[in-house]
Amino acid sequence: MTTVSSRATDEIAALYDRWAAAIRDKDPAGALSHYSPDIVAFDLIDPLQYEGVEAVKERLQQWFASFSGPLGYEVRDLQVSAGEDVAFSHSLNHVQATTNEGKSLDMWWRATLCYRKVAGKWVVTHSHTSVPFDMSTGGASLGLKP
Amino acid sequence: MTTVSSRATDEIAALYDRWAAAIRDKDPAGALSHYSPDIVAFDLIDPLQYEGVEAVKERLQQWFASFSGPLGYEVRDLQVSAGEDVAFSHSLNHVQATTNEGKSLDMWWRATLCYRKVAGKWVVTHSHTSVPFDMSTGGASLGLKP
Repeated sequence: MTTVSSRATDEIAALYDRWAAAIRDKDPAGALSHYSPDIVAFDLIDPLQYEGVEAVKERLQQWFASFSGPLGYEVRDLQVSAGEDVAFSHSLNHVQATTNEGKSLDMWWRATLCYRKVAGKWVVTHSHTSVPFDMSTGGASLGLKP
Repeated sequence: MTTVSSRATDEIAALYDRWAAAIRDKDPAGALSHYSPDIVAFDLIDPLQYEGVEAVKERLQQWFASFSGPLGYEVRDLQVSAGEDVAFSHSLNHVQATTNEGKSLDMWWRATLCYRKVAGKWVVTHSHTSVPFDMSTGGASLGLKP
């Protein structure tokens, strides 16, 4: 990991671990416990942006509800840069799950989270998750692997 | 704009203006003058990630070369959070151009840039640009507007 402030970097890495664990548990409240009320989220799917934690929560609840059984969530190549009050992280994240229709989901995407320390507590004020697209087809690249 | 350190925020905003101007000028060296050699870039198109400024430069040169005539590049909803040594920005960016094949490009995407101050100079160590996709079709959403 890239380090600016090692203490802050450890704090962000711990927060990230808890976030990923909450996603595995399909726990929206846990996953969003460190999200700022005014978060601006650029998500994998339409629209261009989600504004505010309530919009993100609704999206996350729908996503969790679309799966039956366990949700595998792996984080690779996590890099954290953290100062005293501002931080960011990026990683490649891997989801394995089965939809309610019995379809297998096995997908990697890019995840960037941006943080600010507000009243002594780190909060996510911006998130950006995406897959790239294939210029020759215009299709989202849902099957890439790192 | 969100402010943590107003001086640092002004510095990042000025850097962003110069970056956008260099893109309008189709100037790869100018656009990348504040990129870290070890940047990790999540781009609009495949693959999942580009590692290092040379890979980003090659991609940018190809992109610029694909257009004839002027390149319109508008930045909307720019928000900057900047501490003393770590910063990030996000915005919705709009490109209008004509390809060498005469095809019109008019497209909005999401842009997140992440910065660190290294030896007294702000550099971009991570970039993430993307469009979301339409879950019903699997197609990249190239025609969204804010």
